[in-house]
Amino acid sequence: MTGYQLQAQTSAALLAALPGWRDLQAARPDLDQETVEAILGEAAKFAEGRLALVNSPGDAEGCRLDGGRVRTPSGYAQAYQALAGDGWIGMDLDDAHGGQGLPVVLHTAAQMLFDRGCTALMMLAGSSRAAAHLLAAHADASVREDWVPALCSGHSAATICISEPDAGSDVGRIRTRGEQRDGVWHITGQKIWISFGDHDMAPRIGHCLLARTSDAPGTRGLSLFLVPDVLEDGRRNAIVIERIEEKMGLHGSPTCSMQFEGAEGILIGEEGRGLSQLFTMMEFMRLQTGAQGLGLALGAAGIAAGYIHERHQGGDPKRAAVPISAHGDVRRQVLDLSAKAATLHMAVLDLALLLDRIELTADPDTRAALEAQAAFTLPIIKTFGAETAFETASAAMQVLGGAGYTREWPVEQILRDCRVLAIYEGTTGMQAQDFLMRRLWRENGAGLKSFLGAAHSEIDKSSSSDSYKISLKKILEQFETLSTGMDALKTGNPRAGEFAAEPYLRAGWAAVSALNAWRLSQLADQPRLAALGTYRLDQLEGEFAFHAGKCHAASNSYDVLFETAFPEA
Amino acid sequence: MTGYQLQAQTSAALLAALPGWRDLQAARPDLDQETVEAILGEAAKFAEGRLALVNSPGDAEGCRLDGGRVRTPSGYAQAYQALAGDGWIGMDLDDAHGGQGLPVVLHTAAQMLFDRGCTALMMLAGSSRAAAHLLAAHADASVREDWVPALCSGHSAATICISEPDAGSDVGRIRTRGEQRDGVWHITGQKIWISFGDHDMAPRIGHCLLARTSDAPGTRGLSLFLVPDVLEDGRRNAIVIERIEEKMGLHGSPTCSMQFEGAEGILIGEEGRGLSQLFTMMEFMRLQTGAQGLGLALGAAGIAAGYIHERHQGGDPKRAAVPISAHGDVRRQVLDLSAKAATLHMAVLDLALLLDRIELTADPDTRAALEAQAAFTLPIIKTFGAETAFETASAAMQVLGGAGYTREWPVEQILRDCRVLAIYEGTTGMQAQDFLMRRLWRENGAGLKSFLGAAHSEIDKSSSSDSYKISLKKILEQFETLSTGMDALKTGNPRAGEFAAEPYLRAGWAAVSALNAWRLSQLADQPRLAALGTYRLDQLEGEFAFHAGKCHAASNSYDVLFETAFPEA
Repeated sequence: MTGYQLQAQTSAALLAALPGWRDLQAARPDLDQETVEAILGEAAKFAEGRLALVNSPGDAEGCRLDGGRVRTPSGYAQAYQALAGDGWIGMDLDDAHGGQGLPVVLHTAAQMLFDRGCTALMMLAGSSRAAAHLLAAHADASVREDWVPALCSGHSAATICISEPDAGSDVGRIRTRGEQRDGVWHITGQKIWISFGDHDMAPRIGHCLLARTSDAPGTRGLSLFLVPDVLEDGRRNAIVIERIEEKMGLHGSPTCSMQFEGAEGILIGEEGRGLSQLFTMMEFMRLQTGAQGLGLALGAAGIAAGYIHERHQGGDPKRAAVPISAHGDVRRQVLDLSAKAATLHMAVLDLALLLDRIELTADPDTRAALEAQAAFTLPIIKTFGAETAFETASAAMQVLGGAGYTREWPVEQILRDCRVLAIYEGTTGMQAQDFLMRRLWRENGAGLKSFLGAAHSEIDKSSSSDSYKISLKKILEQFETLSTGMDALKTGNPRAGEFAAEPYLRAGWAAVSALNAWRLSQLADQPRLAALGTYRLDQLEGEFAFHAGKCHAASNSYDVLFETAFPEA
Repeated sequence: MTGYQLQAQTSAALLAALPGWRDLQAARPDLDQETVEAILGEAAKFAEGRLALVNSPGDAEGCRLDGGRVRTPSGYAQAYQALAGDGWIGMDLDDAHGGQGLPVVLHTAAQMLFDRGCTALMMLAGSSRAAAHLLAAHADASVREDWVPALCSGHSAATICISEPDAGSDVGRIRTRGEQRDGVWHITGQKIWISFGDHDMAPRIGHCLLARTSDAPGTRGLSLFLVPDVLEDGRRNAIVIERIEEKMGLHGSPTCSMQFEGAEGILIGEEGRGLSQLFTMMEFMRLQTGAQGLGLALGAAGIAAGYIHERHQGGDPKRAAVPISAHGDVRRQVLDLSAKAATLHMAVLDLALLLDRIELTADPDTRAALEAQAAFTLPIIKTFGAETAFETASAAMQVLGGAGYTREWPVEQILRDCRVLAIYEGTTGMQAQDFLMRRLWRENGAGLKSFLGAAHSEIDKSSSSDSYKISLKKILEQFETLSTGMDALKTGNPRAGEFAAEPYLRAGWAAVSALNAWRLSQLADQPRLAALGTYRLDQLEGEFAFHAGKCHAASNSYDVLFETAFPEA
């Protein structure tokens, strides 16, 4: 079986084991196991048969700016149109909007196969799908009908334009302005880091863009616009692509710096509500980034797991060399990286399912609890999807040795491509602030309570009484205690909280990993995954303690040390 | 002050604080503080004024194979000749051999400045210097006089040819043969991963090469040869450059695959003693790799420390944005990466000094103890020089955000260039085996005892009685206890030792880091370094416990889990 098909089958098996899946299947009896396997099997086939073929050539060829327009690598346009034509982009959008009405979790499982195939190309599918959700939720009927089905079919594509030179993590400093003249909105300003800001892969491009429409400070004066690249009368809109960034990786995905020079735009939703409208989409984007990291991690792990049987080295010098899979150190390396990726696999699907279950839940209290749990989990999955990709790629390269450092093997591209995942869609530092300051402090730990409650109830339902259950319970209890301490910083010492936010996020991931590794360890019919879960769970008590220790160590003495070490501050 | 000058001054200050420096100065009264500062100041000037200028262009231009010869990037040849002309390559070789007779530690401090400037170019200086040491130690007088001064002056350059397609970590499987015909040795076989296997930076190239000269199995049949690219009569030797590897980084350093087609070579030293003769040089190469990692880590750390004052983001939205150095999370990140680099800085200089002190020591017992301590420290410094470079580059990129992922900033090149350091000169797995199986098991922990004895005596001499001393003592004692447990595996369960070797090496680095961070914390006249040492030492108890926990967890159950997870093995 190929790595793609194995990944598809694993996704189907993990889904079947997740408690949330039963809720979803109750509402969607059409999605039986066979159907799920068939859908993901097709996605695997497409990822391997179409996307993977343009991945390495696209990296080598890159994008270029030619007469003001961006040219993408050979084969990208055809592959994108095939992706759209087969219905994969709009999988989880309503049928009424040109989608397939499938759950988010199936979209996620398919997307991570596609990202394994060619993550640079999938950057366009990602922003187009996010824009489709955004417009479906907030645009007027005419704009919605004009754009959403077109985004699903590949006739149109979309970008999300937020960052500016002085407004990166600090969105409130956006200076691009939207001004109404004669009933038409005109957008003026510079946007940077815009993935697929221009391209030749779809006939029409719409830019979902945040711009300032009032002098209210910070994020309150921001409105959301849709700025098409071509106007209704066929004229090109006043948008200039200034340059494509030269990046370490993702060469197939043109990262554009753009000038909007009074470009005509359509106001989406309410004036001044731009940022809050974007939040729906940001949730999708954070899950999407986590899943993207997972696809790349599983790809790198698959290469390492294959290589150790092919490469022969060591053993009795009088005999033929043994496969390196015989060496203890190599086994430990491959167990370690594979177990981390498998645990993330379970965790990403669990979060995607949670988003589906929110939509199925009518009871407001239950829904609020699920929403809080999703908000608690999103910064974790975004961050550790990104980090697991990078760690796994680097660990896989170590298994391959010198070969892994060359372009003969795809691992070095994965390493280069994935490094930006921890930066875009909110850096790790921003995710950690969200986790501590919004989820724990501002929302009084509603998401944490919901997560812990669901976890304990799941564990208590399990009939097994092994040491793994005890280990998991211990980590969850320690995480609860740690969280109580972190919560006290809210009033007691918020500055120490700033220093401890990232280690606290890491401790949170250790706790979420423990639950998911335990789930893997319980899969009696999946000995491969159960072994990986067991290995991972064994490591997590130590890892949790490590991060908790860093939380405790973080104190205002860091300010003193910093100012001594860097007096120019 | 520039980052290069700061690094030079820091090296001088750290040297002055190291106990071994006093021993060295007693033997070399000419090397007073002023002279050391002057030498390193000049090295900094050369690194910044010459090498740094070809670094980024050389990465973009790369090397190419043209009519069977390798062309290096523009400016490389001139920069290399200037490096040699100023005497930097042979700094630590005897005057009699065309060197400057300076200690290894000064060469190391200069080298890490040059590596910060252009590590790809320095790959040639590294192998040429290693070859000069090798030939000075083992070649006949005529070969030595012909080659060693020429390697120092830049008239010649050298490679080290060990790896073959089926002989990477497993050197004993070398198949290249040396055969004597009519009194002349002829070399036939393929060598791969040869840095600067050909180039246009010096008039003559000598390949120091391991080849099989008898059928004795493993490493016993290997002899060392010097194979010049041009013969005495001016004919080119029978060496074909097959290809240059396409790598993730180090594009300025051509990694060659070469065929030796009966090429004429000179036997160096004794037949069948090739590998043991190479060991002298391998020590230099492992220290050199650690120092290379340090130079790159300090470069990346310097960029991050500068950026946080320039980049403004966040703060009260009604006011101008603040420098990001105001944010707690950013401060923690920069403290963390800078403290790790500073601790490595102290540790690398300490090891280099140790190599110098061995040469100065006449008493055989003292000399044996120092040699054992160096052998214990080398795998640590090699491994964590490499890892600190990669971690620091990645952490610096995180501080820079999106900008760091682009070629506008040099961090992404550092990340790409340094990743191979953990692979070449013996992978991390091989270093861990060396550390556990040779140093602890085979040599009965002689190096460990020597390290601990020296550390305790240094601590006890210190008059300070602060909590840092207690913390350091605690880590050293825990490391001793852990080592006792690891030693018991030698007879009790060597397979578990294989699984635990890498975590044990990491625990060793935590212990070595603790000593060096404590030394930093004691530098009353260097508040910047003292603050970084204090920060680092605070983190190390937790880090030590983490790695020790992984050592304890490693067991033969890993074989069972591995075989369940990867049944195809």
